[in-house]
Amino acid sequence: MINYKRLEKDFINLSKFSKTKKCGITRYSYTCEDLMAKQYLIDEMKKIGLSIEIDNVGNIRGRMEGIEKNLLPIISGSHIDSVRNGGQYDGVLGVLGALEVARTIKENNIKQKRNFDILIFSEEEGSNFGLNLIGSKNIIKRFKNKELKTIFSENAKSMYEMIKYSEEKLKIEHSSEFYKAGFDTMVELHIEQGNFLEKNDKQIGIVEGIFGLRWFKVTIEGEANHAGATPMKFRKDPLVEASKIIYEIPNIVCDIDKINFVATVGQLSVIPNNINVIPDKVDFIIDVRSIDIKNIDTFYRELLLKIDKLNDRRYKAKVEELTRTDAKLFNKEVIDLLSKVAKTEKINYLKMYSGANHDTSVMSEIGKGIMIFVPSINGRSHCPEEETKKSDVEAGVNFLYKTLITLINK
Amino acid sequence: MINYKRLEKDFINLSKFSKTKKCGITRYSYTCEDLMAKQYLIDEMKKIGLSIEIDNVGNIRGRMEGIEKNLLPIISGSHIDSVRNGGQYDGVLGVLGALEVARTIKENNIKQKRNFDILIFSEEEGSNFGLNLIGSKNIIKRFKNKELKTIFSENAKSMYEMIKYSEEKLKIEHSSEFYKAGFDTMVELHIEQGNFLEKNDKQIGIVEGIFGLRWFKVTIEGEANHAGATPMKFRKDPLVEASKIIYEIPNIVCDIDKINFVATVGQLSVIPNNINVIPDKVDFIIDVRSIDIKNIDTFYRELLLKIDKLNDRRYKAKVEELTRTDAKLFNKEVIDLLSKVAKTEKINYLKMYSGANHDTSVMSEIGKGIMIFVPSINGRSHCPEEETKKSDVEAGVNFLYKTLITLINK
Repeated sequence: MINYKRLEKDFINLSKFSKTKKCGITRYSYTCEDLMAKQYLIDEMKKIGLSIEIDNVGNIRGRMEGIEKNLLPIISGSHIDSVRNGGQYDGVLGVLGALEVARTIKENNIKQKRNFDILIFSEEEGSNFGLNLIGSKNIIKRFKNKELKTIFSENAKSMYEMIKYSEEKLKIEHSSEFYKAGFDTMVELHIEQGNFLEKNDKQIGIVEGIFGLRWFKVTIEGEANHAGATPMKFRKDPLVEASKIIYEIPNIVCDIDKINFVATVGQLSVIPNNINVIPDKVDFIIDVRSIDIKNIDTFYRELLLKIDKLNDRRYKAKVEELTRTDAKLFNKEVIDLLSKVAKTEKINYLKMYSGANHDTSVMSEIGKGIMIFVPSINGRSHCPEEETKKSDVEAGVNFLYKTLITLINK
Repeated sequence: MINYKRLEKDFINLSKFSKTKKCGITRYSYTCEDLMAKQYLIDEMKKIGLSIEIDNVGNIRGRMEGIEKNLLPIISGSHIDSVRNGGQYDGVLGVLGALEVARTIKENNIKQKRNFDILIFSEEEGSNFGLNLIGSKNIIKRFKNKELKTIFSENAKSMYEMIKYSEEKLKIEHSSEFYKAGFDTMVELHIEQGNFLEKNDKQIGIVEGIFGLRWFKVTIEGEANHAGATPMKFRKDPLVEASKIIYEIPNIVCDIDKINFVATVGQLSVIPNNINVIPDKVDFIIDVRSIDIKNIDTFYRELLLKIDKLNDRRYKAKVEELTRTDAKLFNKEVIDLLSKVAKTEKINYLKMYSGANHDTSVMSEIGKGIMIFVPSINGRSHCPEEETKKSDVEAGVNFLYKTLITLINK
């Protein structure tokens, strides 16, 4: 079993570099805080004899050599970059969990057929450059490296410049491509970031797949007018119409699929946004996710009907699709393997889908992927209140350990 | 009758100093554009022998002396400052109308018992300093002059500094107080800024009063969470709840009073306003106006019920009153006088209330006030599309002329 005290110390050490009182963690990729955290992890990995490499977007790999070099490696890991004022578990748990597993393998002299790689992915959140999952996209060659010089951080530094600086500081070997020959399986331990496990009183979620995602931008133009001088019946107020749609979204979603379907309006802007002016224009983005593309299509058709009705009433309304990511179903064989381990270990688990996207979803395009979730207290994440019970962290890392030693020797 | 060609030339001349292609008029108080426009008006008033004075917030008065010095004066005028990218009629019509009336009186050698004052009010819109109706508030002594040094423009210049600069440039006599002894009646000609006249096919509105106003700020706190990972039934989304209220506002208002009551949400903010985060907090301001305070009270009670229900459901919701202006009913005698003139002149008019506030509402605290409205095409104002038909402008200024010569000799 893993050593929880040792793991707890890692959490404390890592958060030291970027914790601000009450404000949680802000650790953007390639910043000073990020480099200090990475240096700590590199040192810990070196202590147990791992060989360390960095690739051209700053992904870091610590490799524990197996006996049979011709077999494809097993990967575990996640990211350590955070959102602004985020929590200390998101991503970090997957990296520290993998590190603790490597230490436990080492100290227990566990036989190891395959190479075991710890991966620390760069720029998963997209907080610093506005583009997410850059690390995993780079590994599967879906990120064009020539873009590095044209992508800038909040502080107007190019991604290229910041990566170069990281590499100089960290002084580790460069690898031009981590998985040219592919890999066998990647297992990522992560906090759930929702409250499904908590509400269902389960300690572990075996993630069978990741929701597909679409962002629909809705724009409604009405007619700006004086808030005092325009009688109610002569108004064309786009905010009233937008509100009707937003209010109805939860009902539309639940009528389609109560469990594996969510839709959210998190961003909305009112133009001109003056207290005493009936708005001219309102736009908002609907983040729609489901494991089943048909749910999203049904939602989209209902949305279009509403937009058409607005245009019939002489508003100027439209929907644009801003982004689209297909749903990902993980390999059935790996899901079964994890379920078997969970049963053997008498773990209180359920199978579930993830509404959030993760590096493993990207990575699973060139190998098998699977994720393990542990509960988030009150479902909170991306905030200083983000937390997972000690007992759940320990259970999660132990389950990761059992899973990985099975996979490594498969 | 007035000379429409001459008036039209004034509009062209005045807008020359600040017109930007397609962007309408931006003429903030005490700016260069404002000073050039004021210099033009001063020159025009001087041509017909008016004596000009400026007060300590930059209000300008042109006085046409009457025979009986002991009688209280009659005032007509408005403002020439605009919102950003506003139109060329708002305020300006009232100033140019009064100027054209003075010219017509002069050229027709009309007998004039009372003093007739043209007033150009400063900072009515509040665009430059965020405080509106400063000119009229100063005249009735509701504006503290010691505040001048603590109020700053968008460009961080103090109001005091800008007023001093104006006075130096304009080189006209200073008056410490325009209406120490009060005045008899002020008549302000203005565009309606709504579409009530247009929809009722009337050319003139005799304004019987100004709606009272309250601004209610509603804040709803829910629970920020990951947009993908949080099932619909476990959410506390404040934007969904805010949307329900905003969507229902027009129905609540129309159930109370369909005509003399309006409520608008023009400003709303979503926190943190990230596409993929269920909002933590939403706040919005409801601008509520009516001639009858009971309407606003009923609305407020219904709003509070909704807020209470949200708090019962463990949201944190509240309403604050940000501002309150009482409704103003104009003097009945003056309303009757204008109605009589309108009938005699066979004008196609109606009596109405104004949902927008104006300098005359403030001024009517120390004398009698009345306003004349002309239709706004499509009810548009505060935008480059703001327009009034030539025939309506002409009818409005002619009605102002007939009204003023009656009042001046009363």
